[in-house]
Amino acid sequence: MIIDCHGHYTTEPKDLHRFRKEQTAAANAKNKAAMPPRAALKLPDDEIRDSIGGNQLKLQRERGTDLTIFSPRASGMGHHIGDESVSIEWSQICNDLIARVVELFPKNFIGVCQLPQSPGVDPKNCAVELERCVRMGFVGCNLNPDPSGGYFNSPPMTDKSWFPLYEKMIELDVPCMIHVSGCCNPAMHTTGSYYLNADTMVFMQVILSDLFKTFPKLKFIIPHGGGAVPFHWGRFRGIALNNGKPELAEIMGDNIFFDTCVYHQPGIDLLTEVVPIDNILFASEMVGAVKGNDPKTGFGFDDTKRYIDKAPISDADRRKIFEGNARRVYPRLKAKAPAAATA
Amino acid sequence: MIIDCHGHYTTEPKDLHRFRKEQTAAANAKNKAAMPPRAALKLPDDEIRDSIGGNQLKLQRERGTDLTIFSPRASGMGHHIGDESVSIEWSQICNDLIARVVELFPKNFIGVCQLPQSPGVDPKNCAVELERCVRMGFVGCNLNPDPSGGYFNSPPMTDKSWFPLYEKMIELDVPCMIHVSGCCNPAMHTTGSYYLNADTMVFMQVILSDLFKTFPKLKFIIPHGGGAVPFHWGRFRGIALNNGKPELAEIMGDNIFFDTCVYHQPGIDLLTEVVPIDNILFASEMVGAVKGNDPKTGFGFDDTKRYIDKAPISDADRRKIFEGNARRVYPRLKAKAPAAATA
Repeated sequence: MIIDCHGHYTTEPKDLHRFRKEQTAAANAKNKAAMPPRAALKLPDDEIRDSIGGNQLKLQRERGTDLTIFSPRASGMGHHIGDESVSIEWSQICNDLIARVVELFPKNFIGVCQLPQSPGVDPKNCAVELERCVRMGFVGCNLNPDPSGGYFNSPPMTDKSWFPLYEKMIELDVPCMIHVSGCCNPAMHTTGSYYLNADTMVFMQVILSDLFKTFPKLKFIIPHGGGAVPFHWGRFRGIALNNGKPELAEIMGDNIFFDTCVYHQPGIDLLTEVVPIDNILFASEMVGAVKGNDPKTGFGFDDTKRYIDKAPISDADRRKIFEGNARRVYPRLKAKAPAAATA
Repeated sequence: MIIDCHGHYTTEPKDLHRFRKEQTAAANAKNKAAMPPRAALKLPDDEIRDSIGGNQLKLQRERGTDLTIFSPRASGMGHHIGDESVSIEWSQICNDLIARVVELFPKNFIGVCQLPQSPGVDPKNCAVELERCVRMGFVGCNLNPDPSGGYFNSPPMTDKSWFPLYEKMIELDVPCMIHVSGCCNPAMHTTGSYYLNADTMVFMQVILSDLFKTFPKLKFIIPHGGGAVPFHWGRFRGIALNNGKPELAEIMGDNIFFDTCVYHQPGIDLLTEVVPIDNILFASEMVGAVKGNDPKTGFGFDDTKRYIDKAPISDADRRKIFEGNARRVYPRLKAKAPAAATA
């Protein structure tokens, strides 16, 4: 079985966009009366089925992957839009939609939720929505280290304000993927630099801290191959060692994982060369950041399975990346997608 | 000849630190009367000579490099401290100190200046200091894309507010190295994530723009191996192609260059595999971000010459990285360091 730990619902029914546009306008106008009613949302099963069948499911089949750990569009979370009540309403709608995708395609998708974060609001408030989603069968959450949308003015992930949410994650036995949302800072491009910069920032925050000593069961998936970290492995190793910390491999341990959303062979080869295999999870981020085929290979930029297939690693290691590691990181997968006898 | 295009004066005489501490305190207290007098600075030749002789010069000799393009400590620029007048005073002092290093060791160092940037102040005001430094024999400048020190609230480098400074750079025939300063944002680590994130951000800003069509002679050196870019080469290629832009190699052309401040062999191998050789400049950033020896190799993390020596590239390509490309990017090197007959 091949588990893709990083897929977003980026082909949502069009009425969802209409709703969000109206909700954003009302939030910006501070006009609660103009908030669109949730009950008026038109999200028929057929439209959901088609939007998945012609896209993510089609690509799963073409590329030979089996199960996608699926969450709402990351750039759409928009935690900086409106206040906490807006974020709660929007998160519930988006998460419910993921639950419906999973209900329609239970063998192919399993849910991860977005959280109703809001700039300056205590992260512990998100525990309610996380708990609700786990009750619906979700196996993890996306946690935004910068709800401002590009100005990086939140406390680091090592700050105590995050701890109650971490405690809830541990209690529920779910990991988080560190993932910012759309960038509203004109200096930064959402998928090109903002995502990667947040990944690199958070890795650096945690490696010099005692966060995982305080929370040995806390699990962070840092997506997009860990941002800049594998390319600068020597820099990060050196900084850690100079600060009296152990080797990065030891720091990552059972707590920090990188995914394989790196869209070329040399990048994947580097990733699998320097990062411990036990800390790498297969992922494509499809349909996502980079659409279309690479003219040099003729295959999708985000067809990351091809790169893993060709990486100079053992078949046992490939199986860990494709399935085994995901089962360790997402314990709740077990109930929903039992391992095949051959896995 | 081996030219290291990225060295900072990080072993400055101690009285410089005393001055900056007092200047910062006065600036924060908004007490101009408490500003320390520049004339009282004690920076004797002997102390400068020793601080270089026992550090950068010693390492040049041990590692077999010849000439370092040398600028003030990057993390010390501190553009967010005080107002423009504070930044001007501090920049002049730091640049004058570089000029004295070059005067004492003319065969081993050549100057690059910091600019008196200040948050919200028009970058064109920096042209005066740039011109002064070029008259002193400097061959380039460090340009800070985020004078806020970690909040990324400046306009992108494609914004017209930067253009008058670009025009001055072109008139003077000097490139800039994109380099932020010390981070005052508790969410980001100066050398671990902030530097790399600024590099990645600026690359992304310019590749989707027409900046180098507007300024065909403008040259940006993006340090630290180009931040996250080479590791995510496929991502950036895909985003560029999807936006109707050409291949990254074509976009970089004679305008964008990455240095080799990547502190492990696999990183350098990736860099030289995916980035055009003509766009790579040798650099170590020593004595800088990561001190000490890698316990796995027994050699300095920042001894990047060793990685280039071992990279699977031709000797002709190695010579380009070590010398030829730097001569193209810094035309003013010619007068100060004529190429050897064998180069």
